[in-house]
Amino acid sequence: MQATGGTLGTAAFARFRALVEESLLGFLSPDVCPIPAPLRDAMEYALTSGGKRIRPVVLLSAGAAVGGEEKDLLPFACSVEYVHTYSLIHDDLPAMDDDDYRRGRPTCHKVFGEAVAILAGDALLTEAFRVMGESPLAGRDPAKAVRASALLARAAGASGMAGGQMMDLAPPAGEGVSAIEEIDLRKTAALLSASAAMGGILGGGSGSQVESLSRYGRALGLLFQITDDILDETGSFEEMGKTVAKDRARGKLTYPAVRGMAEAGARAESLRGEALQALSPFGGEAETLRDIVRIVATRRS
Amino acid sequence: MQATGGTLGTAAFARFRALVEESLLGFLSPDVCPIPAPLRDAMEYALTSGGKRIRPVVLLSAGAAVGGEEKDLLPFACSVEYVHTYSLIHDDLPAMDDDDYRRGRPTCHKVFGEAVAILAGDALLTEAFRVMGESPLAGRDPAKAVRASALLARAAGASGMAGGQMMDLAPPAGEGVSAIEEIDLRKTAALLSASAAMGGILGGGSGSQVESLSRYGRALGLLFQITDDILDETGSFEEMGKTVAKDRARGKLTYPAVRGMAEAGARAESLRGEALQALSPFGGEAETLRDIVRIVATRRS
Repeated sequence: MQATGGTLGTAAFARFRALVEESLLGFLSPDVCPIPAPLRDAMEYALTSGGKRIRPVVLLSAGAAVGGEEKDLLPFACSVEYVHTYSLIHDDLPAMDDDDYRRGRPTCHKVFGEAVAILAGDALLTEAFRVMGESPLAGRDPAKAVRASALLARAAGASGMAGGQMMDLAPPAGEGVSAIEEIDLRKTAALLSASAAMGGILGGGSGSQVESLSRYGRALGLLFQITDDILDETGSFEEMGKTVAKDRARGKLTYPAVRGMAEAGARAESLRGEALQALSPFGGEAETLRDIVRIVATRRS
Repeated sequence: MQATGGTLGTAAFARFRALVEESLLGFLSPDVCPIPAPLRDAMEYALTSGGKRIRPVVLLSAGAAVGGEEKDLLPFACSVEYVHTYSLIHDDLPAMDDDDYRRGRPTCHKVFGEAVAILAGDALLTEAFRVMGESPLAGRDPAKAVRASALLARAAGASGMAGGQMMDLAPPAGEGVSAIEEIDLRKTAALLSASAAMGGILGGGSGSQVESLSRYGRALGLLFQITDDILDETGSFEEMGKTVAKDRARGKLTYPAVRGMAEAGARAESLRGEALQALSPFGGEAETLRDIVRIVATRRS
């Protein structure tokens, strides 16, 4: 890692993001993974949508914070982005949130049809586990790889992200803040928390470092979701690249919808503090992780 | 393994199947994996459909053939069945094969709706990788676990089963036997071949044993698909528990549809020989695997 022990700030964020962008498709190249044409097209379309790549950058930044090797972490970072991308494809389906636009472009099923979109999501989810299992680190240090892979599966699965999407579609009784945060924890924070913890595990961090990173990712995930919900109420299609104010129309349980914008803003501020507090055991080597908090808290799209 | 080195025949098949039946839900129990109600119901409905459990039994039988420990293999066997079950749920969706019945019962989306069915498939696929990664063997011998997990991901992913379903929906140009067998290889044989090889790896088999088991599973998978296609042409709803003769109506590329029943029967016979031939390095310890060939070749539903 070039800057291990030094200060990893916004420049590192941009570099990590570029690294992810240029690596995402390589793990699916035809020599490694021969994919029938329409399925490949749909997977690549979804992967090259110009997302913020927050999750893989969090993984790489967390790994850097504990002194991990970038090349060891990269397959896992891309795998986390595959899992995130699969979840967007499936969430957008007509049977789910029925969204026509995502990041300013037609959603996967609008371009390729529902069947191909379902399969593209399935395939990205599955390939994530292949890429981790076939990574050089998995060969050299399988214990770390298997731990990281299990963590990602738990975060994405029925008790995590998939369960959160279920609760989002059919919210539990009551409109309390605890119900909202349980949904947000599963739907968004689980994957971000796992990304940070995976970086810590794969980078060789101590148990307490991994625990701190996990708490950081959890607070960051809740912050991410609440700012998303605030933007859904206040943003425009042009800014957001997707249809806005749909959550309210659908009667979804979100923090600003239930508690109002002022209270949502205060909760966001408190989560920002929680995320930074979780990083207190770290010095300058966690500066990129701190930058991510600022980027997420102040984003406008 | 009780019968290691001895003869494992049809009695072992029944015992393995019962073991899988009684273990499938345990890895998803609420204390291990808290799942929101409708999602859990859909997953359990799909898992308790009374399938033949061929894939997990193949894995357990292959592990037994190389002297593996049953309790080490079981989480992996159940994971393979989760992956198979997810594929059935998604294949049956309206956007895919649009099937209303499966094994004599309404399909998952008919009972729970499309959104929950999509999520149940997603969640089963994901939980498969959690169960493998959190298994006792993964803690004790992570190298074996990571190899088996990567093999399953490759078999199920974009170049395997998901790719096969893509080609099944949009067949490649030409109606040659090679096109049919490429679809069947991906759609069915990849997962059966991986199941056999995983048993070999996890049970501690040698490289050449794993290779033999992989070839066995490949031939068994092609045999399974061709008998399925023959039954689709000749079986009744009562026998099959699903709508029959749909493949021909849909213009799907199958061996009997393209080459006729006689040639399909001859090909099945040849694949039966191939599967048995692949087991020639093994003695009585592979008897269950030989029984499975007979069971698959002579099944009537």
